[in-house]
Amino acid sequence: MIKLLVAGTVAYDSIETPFGKAENVLGGSALHFTNAASFFTDVGIVATVGADFNLEDIAFLKERNVDMAGLEVDSQGKTFRWEGKYNYDLNQAITLKTELNVIENFKPKVPPQFRDADFLFLANIDPELQAHVISQVKSPTAIVLDTMNFWIESKFDRLMDVIEKVHMLIINEAELREITKEHNLVKGARKLIDRGPSCIVVKRGEYGVFMMSEEELFLAPAFPLEDVFDPTGAGDTFAGGFMGYLANVGDASFETLKQAIVMGTVMASFNVEEFSINRIKKLSYNEIKERYSAFKGVMQFGECTL
Amino acid sequence: MIKLLVAGTVAYDSIETPFGKAENVLGGSALHFTNAASFFTDVGIVATVGADFNLEDIAFLKERNVDMAGLEVDSQGKTFRWEGKYNYDLNQAITLKTELNVIENFKPKVPPQFRDADFLFLANIDPELQAHVISQVKSPTAIVLDTMNFWIESKFDRLMDVIEKVHMLIINEAELREITKEHNLVKGARKLIDRGPSCIVVKRGEYGVFMMSEEELFLAPAFPLEDVFDPTGAGDTFAGGFMGYLANVGDASFETLKQAIVMGTVMASFNVEEFSINRIKKLSYNEIKERYSAFKGVMQFGECTL
Repeated sequence: MIKLLVAGTVAYDSIETPFGKAENVLGGSALHFTNAASFFTDVGIVATVGADFNLEDIAFLKERNVDMAGLEVDSQGKTFRWEGKYNYDLNQAITLKTELNVIENFKPKVPPQFRDADFLFLANIDPELQAHVISQVKSPTAIVLDTMNFWIESKFDRLMDVIEKVHMLIINEAELREITKEHNLVKGARKLIDRGPSCIVVKRGEYGVFMMSEEELFLAPAFPLEDVFDPTGAGDTFAGGFMGYLANVGDASFETLKQAIVMGTVMASFNVEEFSINRIKKLSYNEIKERYSAFKGVMQFGECTL
Repeated sequence: MIKLLVAGTVAYDSIETPFGKAENVLGGSALHFTNAASFFTDVGIVATVGADFNLEDIAFLKERNVDMAGLEVDSQGKTFRWEGKYNYDLNQAITLKTELNVIENFKPKVPPQFRDADFLFLANIDPELQAHVISQVKSPTAIVLDTMNFWIESKFDRLMDVIEKVHMLIINEAELREITKEHNLVKGARKLIDRGPSCIVVKRGEYGVFMMSEEELFLAPAFPLEDVFDPTGAGDTFAGGFMGYLANVGDASFETLKQAIVMGTVMASFNVEEFSINRIKKLSYNEIKERYSAFKGVMQFGECTL
């Protein structure tokens, strides 16, 4: 039985950053998520690819106990493709081209052996599909949802229906403001908590993460990197580290959530060091643990001596 | 003998925020700085005001051991005035009007009894005046410098001369990028450290503070506030809390600097809760200590359990 289930996309990306170019490389929310999460727990993946997808390229994930039973190969279609670039402000992706291809008619099916998963991550897909995934699982400890401005603007009511059904949201700052019409993070997070979720995680790019539950707050800066090479997938890698850690520990107490936020931050900091999934693919446990400690180091300070 | 000396401005501000309006209220870098720093140590102030300035308004600072011997009253002139507004993005001040008045011909004179000060803060004034202040003090433990885009653009070489003479810079993110032509904070801070200062403090507004020395890093988020009323003076209040704390402890080790950063953050978080210097003016030590502890709380997390 898998502990963690993700529903999202597997894609071929073409990316240009100020530091180089990569064409038709592995990408997609579910793939970045799984690549990170599988360091910590068994992961089941629900997604679709086309006949052009080379399954060999992700065979390495099986060695990390990733179950591909939910990866549908649509022999009539082509894999989802995204083309984008970044200027020196690496926080802002500029989409050059999106080919939905097999995503267009995707209806995610959760294989029976995945339905008992304790943790479920709904990556950024149509809120109606997210609702459809929720309807197929039993009673996870935590359902966590991501979304994007496109769904906020085009399917607001459907999105709010899903938000009422999940335990946590992982969204970025601009999305929180757009959903809640609140500029202030504390006020915005409270509005969402009033609608159902018990915890809101707000990604602030190079500025780190803000997490709020009904009664508690946690703030973590991003890991200060000298060389950010390609930010594509950083958000999903963050979510993968976060939920992989939760599933590993097996609870969602605020103490565990804080450590999970740091683990997400650590994994995201590795992801941006190379194109695509390359850096995380070859990562070691020791590197992960060392960076977690280093991160703790740059945030620690003493009591007030007054 | 005073421990901490500040050279900067005392002003009358007229401010409009989405939450209200205040006309001809106390402001200026040296005043915001002193208002915060005087909670922790003796402060000497070097600045100038015009004949229209009501000294009674700042008499309360004397009870906190602020020495006004360096506050020059120019009977021929009017006090410096700044008029500005903020929209909902409170990080961005829009200057509506600046009347330099007595500032225009200001030549800061450090009274003899101030020349042994251990800590010197050069608030944002003309780099030539900053250099002139440095030439009048003996050998402070730490000289800390602030500046702004105006001087970076109009007096770059003079500014770099001063930077070579100081121990620390407190600047904002955009200023660091403008001075160093580096987008990346770590790289930018290293460039400045190569020019002389041993420590760079980068203010990131609502995202907190980044501090780097030759060998160490520290990151602190901003205190998450629900109601930010008026951000005017937050940067100088931060510097006041930071340097007041340093002067109180009496050293500038990286451990003390980290606590000082948090104290600066705490003081700035109070400053923005009301217009002008009003919130800090009536603050108590207990409130300060409580918020320091609360801040520690929202940043703490456990070891990785893997």
